[in-house]
Parts: sequence; structure tokens; C-alpha cells
Amino acid sequence: MKNSVSSRLAEATAPEVARTIYAPPMRGFDQLALERMCFLNEAHALMLADRELITREIAVAILKGICQIREEGPEKVDLDPRFEDSYFAFENRLGAVIGKAKAGWLHMGRSRNDIGSTLDRMAVRDWSLDLLEALSEVRRACLESARVHAEVVMPGYTHLQPAQPITFGYYLANVARGMEREYDRIGGVYERADECALGSAAFAGTSFPIDRRLTADLLGFEKIAAPGLDAVASRDFVTELLWAVTSFQVLASRVAQDFYVFTSWEFNALSFPDSLAGTSSIMPQKKNMLPLEYFRAEAGRSIGALSGVLSAVKGSNYSIGLDSAREGLTEAWPAFARFADALPLLKLVFETAAPNAEKLLKRCSENFSTATDIADGLVREHGVSFREAHHIVGRAVQLAIARGEDASGLTVEILNTAAKAEVGSTFDISEDALRHWTDPTLAVASRKVTGGPAPETTREVVDQMETRLRTDAQALQHRRKALKDSKERLMARINAFLK
Amino acid sequence: MKNSVSSRLAEATAPEVARTIYAPPMRGFDQLALERMCFLNEAHALMLADRELITREIAVAILKGICQIREEGPEKVDLDPRFEDSYFAFENRLGAVIGKAKAGWLHMGRSRNDIGSTLDRMAVRDWSLDLLEALSEVRRACLESARVHAEVVMPGYTHLQPAQPITFGYYLANVARGMEREYDRIGGVYERADECALGSAAFAGTSFPIDRRLTADLLGFEKIAAPGLDAVASRDFVTELLWAVTSFQVLASRVAQDFYVFTSWEFNALSFPDSLAGTSSIMPQKKNMLPLEYFRAEAGRSIGALSGVLSAVKGSNYSIGLDSAREGLTEAWPAFARFADALPLLKLVFETAAPNAEKLLKRCSENFSTATDIADGLVREHGVSFREAHHIVGRAVQLAIARGEDASGLTVEILNTAAKAEVGSTFDISEDALRHWTDPTLAVASRKVTGGPAPETTREVVDQMETRLRTDAQALQHRRKALKDSKERLMARINAFLK
Amino acid sequence: MKNSVSSRLAEATAPEVARTIYAPPMRGFDQLALERMCFLNEAHALMLADRELITREIAVAILKGICQIREEGPEKVDLDPRFEDSYFAFENRLGAVIGKAKAGWLHMGRSRNDIGSTLDRMAVRDWSLDLLEALSEVRRACLESARVHAEVVMPGYTHLQPAQPITFGYYLANVARGMEREYDRIGGVYERADECALGSAAFAGTSFPIDRRLTADLLGFEKIAAPGLDAVASRDFVTELLWAVTSFQVLASRVAQDFYVFTSWEFNALSFPDSLAGTSSIMPQKKNMLPLEYFRAEAGRSIGALSGVLSAVKGSNYSIGLDSAREGLTEAWPAFARFADALPLLKLVFETAAPNAEKLLKRCSENFSTATDIADGLVREHGVSFREAHHIVGRAVQLAIARGEDASGLTVEILNTAAKAEVGSTFDISEDALRHWTDPTLAVASRKVTGGPAPETTREVVDQMETRLRTDAQALQHRRKALKDSKERLMARINAFLK
Amino acid sequence: MKNSVSSRLAEATAPEVARTIYAPPMRGFDQLALERMCFLNEAHALMLADRELITREIAVAILKGICQIREEGPEKVDLDPRFEDSYFAFENRLGAVIGKAKAGWLHMGRSRNDIGSTLDRMAVRDWSLDLLEALSEVRRACLESARVHAEVVMPGYTHLQPAQPITFGYYLANVARGMEREYDRIGGVYERADECALGSAAFAGTSFPIDRRLTADLLGFEKIAAPGLDAVASRDFVTELLWAVTSFQVLASRVAQDFYVFTSWEFNALSFPDSLAGTSSIMPQKKNMLPLEYFRAEAGRSIGALSGVLSAVKGSNYSIGLDSAREGLTEAWPAFARFADALPLLKLVFETAAPNAEKLLKRCSENFSTATDIADGLVREHGVSFREAHHIVGRAVQLAIARGEDASGLTVEILNTAAKAEVGSTFDISEDALRHWTDPTLAVASRKVTGGPAPETTREVVDQMETRLRTDAQALQHRRKALKDSKERLMARINAFLK
Repeated sequence: MKNSVSSRLAEATAPEVARTIYAPPMRGFDQLALERMCFLNEAHALMLADRELITREIAVAILKGICQIREEGPEKVDLDPRFEDSYFAFENRLGAVIGKAKAGWLHMGRSRNDIGSTLDRMAVRDWSLDLLEALSEVRRACLESARVHAEVVMPGYTHLQPAQPITFGYYLANVARGMEREYDRIGGVYERADECALGSAAFAGTSFPIDRRLTADLLGFEKIAAPGLDAVASRDFVTELLWAVTSFQVLASRVAQDFYVFTSWEFNALSFPDSLAGTSSIMPQKKNMLPLEYFRAEAGRSIGALSGVLSAVKGSNYSIGLDSAREGLTEAWPAFARFADALPLLKLVFETAAPNAEKLLKRCSENFSTATDIADGLVREHGVSFREAHHIVGRAVQLAIARGEDASGLTVEILNTAAKAEVGSTFDISEDALRHWTDPTLAVASRKVTGGPAPETTREVVDQMETRLRTDAQALQHRRKALKDSKERLMARINAFLK
Repeated sequence: MKNSVSSRLAEATAPEVARTIYAPPMRGFDQLALERMCFLNEAHALMLADRELITREIAVAILKGICQIREEGPEKVDLDPRFEDSYFAFENRLGAVIGKAKAGWLHMGRSRNDIGSTLDRMAVRDWSLDLLEALSEVRRACLESARVHAEVVMPGYTHLQPAQPITFGYYLANVARGMEREYDRIGGVYERADECALGSAAFAGTSFPIDRRLTADLLGFEKIAAPGLDAVASRDFVTELLWAVTSFQVLASRVAQDFYVFTSWEFNALSFPDSLAGTSSIMPQKKNMLPLEYFRAEAGRSIGALSGVLSAVKGSNYSIGLDSAREGLTEAWPAFARFADALPLLKLVFETAAPNAEKLLKRCSENFSTATDIADGLVREHGVSFREAHHIVGRAVQLAIARGEDASGLTVEILNTAAKAEVGSTFDISEDALRHWTDPTLAVASRKVTGGPAPETTREVVDQMETRLRTDAQALQHRRKALKDSKERLMARINAFLK
Repeated sequence: MKNSVSSRLAEATAPEVARTIYAPPMRGFDQLALERMCFLNEAHALMLADRELITREIAVAILKGICQIREEGPEKVDLDPRFEDSYFAFENRLGAVIGKAKAGWLHMGRSRNDIGSTLDRMAVRDWSLDLLEALSEVRRACLESARVHAEVVMPGYTHLQPAQPITFGYYLANVARGMEREYDRIGGVYERADECALGSAAFAGTSFPIDRRLTADLLGFEKIAAPGLDAVASRDFVTELLWAVTSFQVLASRVAQDFYVFTSWEFNALSFPDSLAGTSSIMPQKKNMLPLEYFRAEAGRSIGALSGVLSAVKGSNYSIGLDSAREGLTEAWPAFARFADALPLLKLVFETAAPNAEKLLKRCSENFSTATDIADGLVREHGVSFREAHHIVGRAVQLAIARGEDASGLTVEILNTAAKAEVGSTFDISEDALRHWTDPTLAVASRKVTGGPAPETTREVVDQMETRLRTDAQALQHRRKALKDSKERLMARINAFLK
Repeated sequence: MKNSVSSRLAEATAPEVARTIYAPPMRGFDQLALERMCFLNEAHALMLADRELITREIAVAILKGICQIREEGPEKVDLDPRFEDSYFAFENRLGAVIGKAKAGWLHMGRSRNDIGSTLDRMAVRDWSLDLLEALSEVRRACLESARVHAEVVMPGYTHLQPAQPITFGYYLANVARGMEREYDRIGGVYERADECALGSAAFAGTSFPIDRRLTADLLGFEKIAAPGLDAVASRDFVTELLWAVTSFQVLASRVAQDFYVFTSWEFNALSFPDSLAGTSSIMPQKKNMLPLEYFRAEAGRSIGALSGVLSAVKGSNYSIGLDSAREGLTEAWPAFARFADALPLLKLVFETAAPNAEKLLKRCSENFSTATDIADGLVREHGVSFREAHHIVGRAVQLAIARGEDASGLTVEILNTAAKAEVGSTFDISEDALRHWTDPTLAVASRKVTGGPAPETTREVVDQMETRLRTDAQALQHRRKALKDSKERLMARINAFLK
């Protein structure tokens, strides 16, 4: 039996090769993949006709054939793995529809290499827009929640120990800022992917006088990828998107790590609706916050996908190969799909996270999280240096704990006992002044410095980020529209040609 | 709408949770997964009946129900993601078949946690045996090829530069030795997985007087996993198998890296049948060695799966969670499947790799790969130290290359010119003696030291490895049989019980 | 200027090469590395003399020279990077000490390749013994702590939500079991490293009639690594140790993840001495549990080292190269050193972790963690199926929470309201019976099933693990002694030879 | 003994903690780190004085003290690990120099958290400029080499099999394009790092009325990092730089992979000076291309550093912790340093790579790499479709090989035999026409399409890239100058203040 796609190779593809290498990627040839394949070939055929490299008759046949294939859908394309990949399967189908003699003209001045690179670029463009859109929704939900909870005082933590009072809104505003940067990272990939590789052929271009600018325009590409070896051998727009997705997942995992602890019985700081929880088959009381574990786990998977892809590509030669362009990149695509799936879940998390305001405020009064405010007060009103104040208050906390007290039991007497021991003198402070310093709500309100947690400061930064979000959304819609317009122009041009 | 599996949770599962978290793993509930689920539940039900924790009537109903579910296959099980996982879907099906009242008795003294851990252990046992069997075939093919090519002299390389002559059989014998260690690594996992977690329940055991030894025996487990938290929270038998698979893939990638270069037009050292090659859509002459790129890429994917799984598990709490036990481990399972698929392809590679003996021998005479033998000769027969001999020959090679000669042009005169420069004296050597030293076949034959490339030494080591392979195969068949026997015993016991 | 080590190369090493490639590894040539280098060369020289491949006079000079170099220490060895590596630097020093003419005889029948592989094997043997010893201490501390706290009742968690009561001793016993497996993994590497590569030379052995068994014996190796290409090109004993270390770190990270949460102000479940804590420069009250963060971070570093090493080695050819044997493995060695450093810290963590017994017991009475015991009680004493019982109790918990009650407020009335709703009937249960079921101490005590948390069951499993620990320690001391004996035998033989 | 830095903690730091956690990072406190520490504290002290938060007297003492510490260098700073980190060691030194009473005023309105974040941002700014500068040199060398070799015809490869003729200059121009994108990635990090965190204090800002804009200006920061939690808890500017470095390393590894093969004896396509080569201790003829292995290995290390850092950070809480900000990021910094070291080596590789033009041209005539040109010729001049032409030529190649011919033996007769078999007819082609089609130089020259390998097309693209390189260099120098200017302004302001 002869080879299905080459007259150079005297044998049919071994089943081990077909099953292991060719079949898995071909299974991904779905409606969307078919659409991209059709667009790409229509643009190429139109360009060939425009340059008079194929006759009008051939071009008409090809364009009508592609139209039929698109309408019939991917299930009509024979995905026999011995065709090696979906392009050969597509060409085979075209041959069946319009005759091999005519279909054979389509593949002039190009190769599967530039086709593959261009399809990947189209896919990355689409993915990046889809992800940005879903991510905008997450940012919006987070910012709205930040505004709503801008006055809910809660302990801020470092090293998971109570540190200083903040608000839940402030926490969320910070996360929103982090997501802004991640949005930029994902957004930055679009531009690097937005170069058309068609016409690079195998990597060395072609001697046919094709018009690369025309093909690029028809497919809505801003630039032409050149030189040709780089254009087909490099998929760093894929690895970069994978990096950007992973960077976001790392942020999401950290927030999940916090929320996971905050929703514990002991913290009881946040709660979520039952609809977000899982249960136990044995323990009837269980309400498990699976979505938060999910984000911790997903970040790990994404890190794995990234290191695996980089590890494969790193070992490839600087040219086309399975490891540089196909098998080596496999894990990137499902990572994008999982991320697209995860974003609405993350939005739901931000929308539904409900702080237990009463408990959180009370906790701030007990857990010494305003100790810094006492030290600041000593500096401001009693003229000691910050380091001295720090030592005095540190010792006072130690004394209070030794007496079995929480922060509400830290009295002026204790403070002065500590001061005496640390600096040899005491201070004339009223209990009222001390209570004023240690009032969490006042402490938060006093932090109006740029980037501080005071409610109005938080709301200002949320305002700025919402403005930024709107700008980003407009830019995104602009890109979406440009892509849509280019498709419509292509269709219009085909219709005009076929008339 | 109420929650499908919990009366504690007042709301139905959110679609975002169902789609993202529950649905993907449930899609893997195939015939094999169903079989394991049935066995596990049969063993548990039998044990409960044996301990008189459930009535005979209930036990009979349950066992008949399971039998029916197995026969109907997985498509009859409603995999609605709101059931959270396949166990609840299974229990739901059992309720539909025998009535919820009876089905409700099955889940005594256990949890999804110990079920999941036990199913994973059963899966790892199966995977490790399957992989070892396929790997044995690869070792066999490699050893046979090593024997066949034990006299095919070729350049050995370090740093991809010609180094010393070896034989292709010797090369393969070395690879076979490496695969022996990888076999041991994979084999070592079986024992660690072969502990039954059932009866650990959620992690704290149960107060019902169950018989863990009986359940373990019925499922063919050697040991009982205990204590219970470790039994359900740890999946290091999965990560270890993934490590072992990855370690093998790294070896395979390195061999592929060599063969990839050896099959280049320029090396023309190895060739493979056309059935292993791919072609180009544009370049008619192409015969591309895709399987070798495949192994390079796969190793990368496997490294990614390993680092991703470790990264997820590392962040989990030491208990059951999505990240410790399910979502976090996801990438391990397809990595095993891909490896199982790749092994027959690797076997084919070893079976069909054909060295170009004539060319390889000629090359050894030209590329200075016997330079060490000249140095050794000088030491042995002319009393210079090795370091001096090394410098003399090094300079001689430099002189020859400067004269545009390859190794066949390295004369006694050149050698003595070098010797004069390096040590101030010359040697009385005949051209014949020099030719004798630099004859690649003789050079190989002289390396009879333990582990050396002389053909008979290679054949001896191949003999030893084939003996070892047989021993391994017997041990493997022993394990296979033990598992099969345990299944038959379980079935027999059920039949006896139902009579 | 000529090349420092080759007469083939006509130019001195470029500074960019020397600085970037050669210098960094040479900086690690410390006393320990020098010792291993001396032993190895002494063994080789003795063997050459034994086989009469070098004269007694030369052998005596070499052995005395090595003795002097060892005594002078590494600072006397000129580590000019243009020597390429520490072996050439060592040989250069030997030449300076005993004259180049004599020193030049040492390098017969071998290469830097088998030297490097053998040194790495010696290093891995040493590392594995050191790590096992330190790890034994950690296991011992953990088991002692497990015994001490075997009756300290605390909530067990799944998904970080209260699940069922266990004891802190039980928790620790589980961790100890996990560490037992990790110990085995590290221990398993020793055997695979314990093969002597010397005599493999570059990879193709040698034509000199050397005695590989003798060299191996003198260096305390159990086996001979063969064939020679595998012996020098494979460092899977290094990657395997790195894997084993990483696997342990992943376990340690998970325990740290738990302890980190347990020591939060809100959990207040565990506390550690101030000596383990860090502070803040601004917040005077701070007591930060840095060691626990350390273990989380270290696991990440170890995962990175593993994936980096695998990624480098995977891309190498199956022979000696920087990527297969040196540069590619670099990160493994400091990972071992960091792990050796971290183990005493982990021991300290287990030794000093102090549970807050009173609070933990109280919490178990409030957080519904005995809900399963109510369900079990209904099954055992009231004849409902487990699934029904599960639904009844689940609903009862929901009702109690809706009424603002914690578990102590879950009354028979609530339970029966739930039962009525779920199964249409109620149960005749006394409040006393219900309190009995929900008493955490009784609940724990009732879980005597194999692997369960009942104190005596925990103590039994601790007993078994301590027995196992003693056996492991004996085996370790046996290996230590064997290595020590081999060194003494080598020294004795040298002394005898020199007399 | 009391704690060295806290009055809250009643015990001295445990040696296990000091040695393992604090000591390693403090060892990196070198001159450069001290400089940054001094600048930062000078800016902060000036701002405090400007806002009248400290007296002029205190400010003068502090500024003079810092000046003295800078001049004395890091060796005067006591790096006792019980100080926890280099900031406390610095503050301790300042106390020793100007008295603790005065030094204690410096730490107002800030924390080690914002100090650490700001120092890391300053470090990333410096690293990114240094790396961009070195990378510009590499790009320049590559472009120059591309221009020089723009007419050196060589086989282009896909899947490491001869594909189509290109030129070595074309190959290099492609690599240069890839490096352009990598340059952009590294450059993009600067902007994200260029935000000053000072004033975020622990994460919640401060109630002191500090002036964050002033501090930022004094330290040359474009923006203020806000809100404060994000400012101190996020180090994604570090991970992004590590990603960008890794992405470059992956490209470098791929080129190294090609060059490694190209410099083999068998390819003999490229050669490098002896000064770039390593030798063997046993094989006198060896010239090993270690730098190329180095780049393959380094990419692996970088991938490992990236996945390790991400894995650590991913597990951290969204706040300051060892895993989020220090220990977890450790491997990033040496990865930057290694990359800075590696770039001059890579430049040397591009500068010295010498193609073997004669051999490469000859090879193009033998290895069927102009087969596509025959197919194109058939399409262009004989009216067959490309697919038919592809099959005809494929079969012709198979026939030629079967006859033992290389490409020079592919005659019109063979071609027509193939044509007859494939399409049932023959073509009227002269041998001259066939030779014309298969002339590699003409084939290359004909590929003038955008991005093609024709020499003038290559030179055009090189021109464009050199223009771009100049623009990049100007932008870089602009940034350098701005940083330098800000330092000078700070110094001038201090001098003015002290007068």
C-alpha cells in the first residue's frame, strides 16, 4: 500500500506512527478549526487569482468548493491519520468536491508550514480576545465588590498573622490592580501574533510572485511575518500567551489561598453561597470551598504546561519540527481553554464573597493589629523615635499576652511598664487616647496616603481602575470589530469575484 | 432547586462550578473505570455482609445491582456534573436499579476519599503492569538489535564530535542498560501503590467494625494503607509513577536526539523505513523522521506534567482536596496513556534502525577517532607517559588538519614532527604499526575490558541483560496472574454468596 | 598563547568561555571534593601498579604526591579556568609536585568522563547517607511528638473545613508514615549510584588490561557500571536523588501549609517558641512563622531544580556533554545541600509544635465535626441506611446554622425536624444519647479500626514505625561503616605499598 | 538571650532558623546592594525632613551616617543572621555610627516590606538595562554576520532533513528577528518595575503625612506603586523578567542545537576558532563545541528557575511572605546574572561562526534540496497543478535514490518516467532547463518574495533591523541617562541640604 500523501515515500504510514503522532492533533479539527482553514484558503486562492497565478476558472471552483466544505462541517472531512494532518485532509476533501486536478492548484507558493503558523496566529488572536473579554468581566466584578466593601474593616495579614487593619474593599482593589497588569500581559501578545506567515512557504519563501500584503489584509493581519524561517519556526506568541495565562493563574491561586483560609470555620471571615460549595459523601455537615482549591490546582497545571512546552521547544532545532511547532506546543491550547472556563468561575467568586463585617471588626480590636498605630502615636505625640516606640509596644504586647490578655486588655499601665523597661521612662497618656489609637476604624481612616486603605482613598483608586477598564474594553471592542470587518470584507470580495 | 447530593447545602450547584470542576473528570468514566468501581463496591458490600453490618437481603440486592450496572456499561450512568463525581453518579444509578432505600446502605464505614484513593491505586497498579509489559518489548527489541549489530563499527561521539570507534550494537546495549534501570523505577511504584485505602473513610477511619484485611484481599491488595489520613491524602504513588515515566522519556529523548542526527543526509549513519517517515506538502523529496522529534517533544510534555502535578500538590494541605487528589493530579493520567502509546513506536524504532555499515567504517578511518589508540600505542610500546603521548598525537592531528589531511593522511612523519615539538625526540614506528593502531575494527576488538565495546564483550552483556529481561518478565506475569486470580476469587465469592 | 591542556587546539581558551563555562564549577572544588579526587586517584594508581601498567617508582611518586596535595588542601591547587575543570587542575598540581614526566603516567586507561561519573557517584552516596541520617532524626522527632500528643483531640480537616475529630498525635503519625516512604525513595538511590564507572574511560573502555573490579573495591563500590557509554553518559542517579528530595519537600510543604494555618491567630491551634519566629520592622506585635513559609518556598525551588535538570538532560545527546553531565545537572547539588540544611529545621518544627489542647477540644464540640457520628449512630441504632442518615444530619446541620446555633445547639428536636423532612419519620433518641454520639473524645476513641485515630491504635502504629526506624538506622550505619572501612582499607594498602 | 530585633519575641532566634533562612540571602549584600540601600534611605530621610516629620538635626545625622556607611563598604556592616535581613543589619550599623537614638527616627512611615519591594524594583531596572545593552551587542553581531554571509548558499532544513537552499546570512537574519522580539519582552518589564513602593509600609500605608511622589522622584521612579498591598506583595516584575530571559534562552538553545549539528565532522558546515573549543583528557584529536552545549543546558536551568519561582509564588498568600517575596524568588537573581554572563559568549558565537561555503553549495546540488524548484518549474512552465508536480518530483526522487543517484543524477529521463507513472504523460524539458531549476544559487536568488532568502531581500531586512537596533539603543541610553540623572539630582539635593 502506498503512502497517502507522498510519492517519495514507498510505504504506507506505520500504524504506530499514525496512531501516536498524527491522530491526536487531528481529533481537534472542529468547526472553529474548519472555519479558520476555510478563511485561510479563500484568502490564498483569491490572492493567487488576483496575481493571475491560477486561472479564474480554477479559482472559482476552489472558492465554491471551500464554501461547500464549510457548510458541510468537519464531519464530512475524512480525518484518516495517514493524511498526516488536517490540511492534507482538507485538501483531500477539496479534491473530492471539485476534482483533484483543480484542487491541486491551490497549494502554490506555500506549504503546510506557513499555513500552520498562520492558523496558530489566528487562533492566538481569537484566544487573546476571548480571554481579555472574560478577564474584563472578572476585573469589573472585583472592582464592584471593592467599592461595596470599601468600609468593611478587617485584619490585614502578613505571614498570615494579623498585621494592620484594612478593609475588604481595599484587599479587592489591590487584587484588581494586579489583574490590570495581567490583562496587559495577555493584551501584549495579540500584537506579536498579529503577523501573517502565509507566503513564507516551507521557510524559504517562494519564487512565485505572490502578494503577501494582500493575503495578510484579507485575513485581517496588521503585519507580515518575515523573514520566512522565523515566521514558520517560531511560536513564541503561543508560549508568551501561555506565560501570561500562567502569570494570571499564579495571582488567582494566591487570592484563592487567602480566601480558602478566610472561609475556614475558625476564620469565618468570608462566606460563599452554598451553590459554590461541594459536600462530602460521608460527613453530612460539609460545605467545602472547591472553587478555591480549583484555582490553586489550576495554577499548578498551568505552570506545568508552561515548563513542558518550553522544555520541548528548547530542544528543537530552529526550524519546523513536531517539537518546535506541534507536539511540543500541545499543552498550550487546552490550557487556554481551561483558563477561559475558569474566568467566569473566578468572577462568581468575586461577586459572591461576603465578608463577616461584625466579626472582622471585633477581631481587629483583639488581635493587636493596631500595635503599629500605638507606636506611631508615641512618635507623633510623645517625641520618641520610631524604633524606640516599636520596642516599647513590642514589649507591651508580650506583657499583655503573658497576662492572658488580648489587645483590648493592653492598658496604659502595661504600656508604661514596657516603656520603663525599654527606655527608662513613662508617658502621660490617657486610656482614651490609647483607645483612640487602637480603634481599627479610625486607624484605617487615618491612612489616606497614596495607595492607603482609607475608604475614600480606596474608592478613588477604584474609580481610576474603572476608567482604565472602560478604556481597555473600548480597545478590545475595536480589535474585535476590525477582525469581524476583515472577515466580512473577505466574504464580500469572494462574492464579488464569484459573480 | 436543591443540591443533588447534600441536604446541608441549600442551593443547587452553580453552573460555573459544575462545568469547570465536576464535568471534566467525570468525562473519563469509561468502561475500565466502571469495572474498577464495580469491583471495589462488590468487595465492600461482601465485607459488610460478612461482618453482618448489612443484611443478607440488602447485600444480595446491592451485588445484583452492581452486576447489572457493569453489564449495562457506563453510558447508562447519568453523568450529570451536579452529582460532583463518578461515585455519586454510580450510587445514583444503583438507587435507580435497586431502589434508594437499599442502595443507601452501601456507603457505610467509608467515604469517597478512601474510594478515590483505592481506585487510583488500582489504576496505578494496572498502568504500571501495562507499561512494564510494553517496556519489556522495547528492551527485547533493543537487545536483539544490539546483538545483530554487535560488529557494525561506527564512530562513538562525545560532544557530538568523533571520539572513539564503537559498534552500533554496543550503543544499543548501553541504551538497554539504561532502560533496565527505568524498568526498575516503574516496577518499584507497584509495591507502594499496592496498599488498600478502603476503610480509611474520610481519613479518620470508622467506628463500624469493618474488616479492612478482607476488603484488601478481595481486591488483591498486598497491604493495608494506614493510618487513614495518609492513606487518603497522599498520592505519591501517582507522582512517583509520573516521575518514573518522565525519567524514561528523558532517556528516550536523548536516544532520539542521537538518531535524529544520525539519520540526517550528512551523517547518513542510520536509516529507517519510509513507513516511519513523514513528508512535506511542498518539498517533494522529503523524508522526515517525525518519530524521533516525537520522543524529544514527549519528554518535554512529561517534564511539564511532572512539574505541574508537583506544583499543585505542593500547595495543597495535607488532607483531601482537589489540589491534593484530583484536579492537581489530572495531567498524570494522560501522561501514562501517552507513554503506553509511545512504547510500541519506540520498539518499532529499535527494530527498524538500520546502520549504514560501510559508510560508518570508512568514516572511522577518516575522522581521527582512533587518535587515542595511537596515544595508547605510544605508551604501551614506546614508553612515554600518557599525557606526553596525548600531547604528541594532539599536535599531530593539528598538523594533519593544517595540511588538509584526514586521519588516513596522518603519517609516521607527521607523528614524529609532533613528537619532536612536544617531547624533543622521535619514535621508530613503521607505517604498518601506525595503520594497525588506527584500524577501527582492531581498535574496537581490543577493548575487551569489562563494559567495553569489543563484539564478544557486548554479546556477553547482552546475554546478561536478556537473562535479566526473562526474570523480569516472569515476575511481571506473576503479578498479572495474582491480580487476575484475585478478581476471579472475588467473582467466585460473589457467586457463592448469591446462591 | 597556547591552549593550557591540548596540543590539538592552537589557541588559548577565550575569556568568555573560561569565565562562563569553566570557572563556575571549579569554584566548588573544596576540601571534600579534593578528598574524593585524592581517593579516586589513589585507587587508580594502586590498580595500575598492581597490574604492572606503571612502574613501582612512578606509582610511589604519584601516591606520595597525592598525599601531599591532600594535606596542603584545595587552596594550593591552581584553579585557573583555562584548565577546563578540577581534574586537569589537580593533574597540573601533581605535575608541579612530582614532575610532569611522572604525573603524566597517571591518566592511563581512563578519561575525565569516567572520573567525573565516579566522583558524582561518590558524592551521591555521601549525600544520600547524610540525608537519610538527618531524615531519621526528623522521623524520630515526629514519632515522639505523635506519641506525646496521641490523646490531644483536635478537628481533622478536609478541604480545610472541620471534618471529623482526630488527635494531633494521629496527624503526626500520618506524616511519619509519609516520611517513611520518602526515606525509602532516597534510600533506593544509593544502590543505583553504587556502581564504579572507572575504567569506562571516555565511554569505550580501554585496551589497557586494567582491573575494574579492583578499583571498584578500593573505592567501596558494590558493582561495576557497564557498559561504558551508559556508565559515563547517564546521571540518572543524580536526577533520581533530586526527585526523591523533591518528593519529600512536597510532603513537607503540605504539612507546613497546615501548620501555617494552624498557628494563625484565628485557629490558635498550634504554637511555636519565639525562637522559631520572625518579626516585623514596623509592626511591634508580630510573631511570624517563617520556617513554615520556608518549607513551602523550598518545595517550589526543588520542583524548579528538578524540572530544570530534566529539561537540560532531556535535550542532550546520549553521551558526555555539558548538558548531560555537568552544566545541565548544576542545580541538583545545591538542592541537596539546602535539603540537608532544612532537615534539622524541620526536626525543630516537629519537636516544638505545641497544640492548644483545651481550645481544640472545645472547637470539636462546636464545629459539627461529629456529624458523621450522629449519622453512624442513626444507622447503628435506628436502622436507617447510611445515605438516609447522611441526608437527615445534613439537613439538621443546615437548620441549626439557620438558627444561629453551633454544634452544641444541635438538639434532638432539630434532628427530628430534619428526619421528618427527609424520611417522613422521627427517632426516639435521648439528648444524652445524642451528646454521647457527639462527644469528640468518645468519637475518636471509637475509631479503633486499622489505621484509625483511637489513641491506642495510634500508639500501636507509632510503635511499628519506631521499630521500622530502628531497622532503617541499623542498615544506614551498616552502609556508613562499609564506606568507612573501604577508605581505611585503601589507606592501609597504600601504606603497605609505600613501605 | 533576647531577640536581636524584637521586644515582642522573648527568645533569641534558633540557630536552625538563622542558618537556614536568614543567612543565605544576607550573603548577597555586596557593594551594589549597599549602594541601593543607601540611595533608598537617603531619599526617605530627605523626604521625612522635607515634610518636617523629623528634625533637621536628625536628618543631617542620618544623611552623614549613610554617607559614611557607603564609603566604608559592606564589610563594615555586621551581617549576623539574627538581624533577620540586610535592612536591620544596615539600621544596626547606622545606630553604631550616629547613635541608636537618632538612627531610630529613620524608619518612620515605612516597613521592610516596601523597602524590599523598592530595592527589588531598583534591581530589576538595573538588570533589565544591563541585559538589554548586552543583548543589543548580540543582535549587532548577528546582523553583521547576516550581512557578511548573505550570499553563502547552504541547505535549509526542516526536521533536520535538507529542505530548500537558503543562505547562512538568511538563517542569521531570521535569528536576529527572533532576538528583536525577545528584546522587546525584556524591555517591556522595565516599565512595570518602574513604580516606587516606598510609603506602602507593611501594605496598609501609613498615617504619617509622607510625600510618596517626592521619594519616587528622588529615586528616579516614573510612577508610584499603589495600592499598598499590591505594591509590596507582588513581584511579578521579577517573574516577568525571568520569563523574558527564559524565552530568549529557549531561542538561543534552538540556534545552539543547529550549530552543534552544523559543526559536527559529518556536517562540517560551520567551524569555530579553537579558542571556543574544549578538549578531552584522553582523546587527543578532540575539539568540542562546549559553548553550544552550554546554551542548551542554560535554557534548561532557566526553565527550571522559572517553574520553581512560579511554583513557590503560586503557593503563597497574597501578602508578604518568604515564599511570595524572598525565598520563593531566590533563583531568579542568579538566573539574571548567568544570562548577563552568557550574552557576550553568544556574541562571540555569532562573530566567529564561519560557514564552509564551498562544501555547503556542493551539498545543495546533491541533496535534492531544489526538488521544490523542479515542481515549481513544472507548474510555471508546463501547466500542471502543484500537487501533480509534487507527486511527479517525489516519485522522481525515489527513482533516483533507488538507482543510487544523488540530486545531480536526477535526469529529465527519470523525471519523465515519474511523470508517466503519476500523470500519464511526459514533458518536453531540456537537461539545461532542469539544471537551471536545480541550481541552488539561482533558486535562492529567485526567492525575492517579502521575507525570502534572496541576498538583496536579506540585506534589506537586515537594514531594517539595524535601523530598529539603533532606535532601541537610543531609547536604552535615554533610560540609562534618566536613571543616572536622578542619582545625581539626589546627591546634589543632599549636598544642598547638608550645607
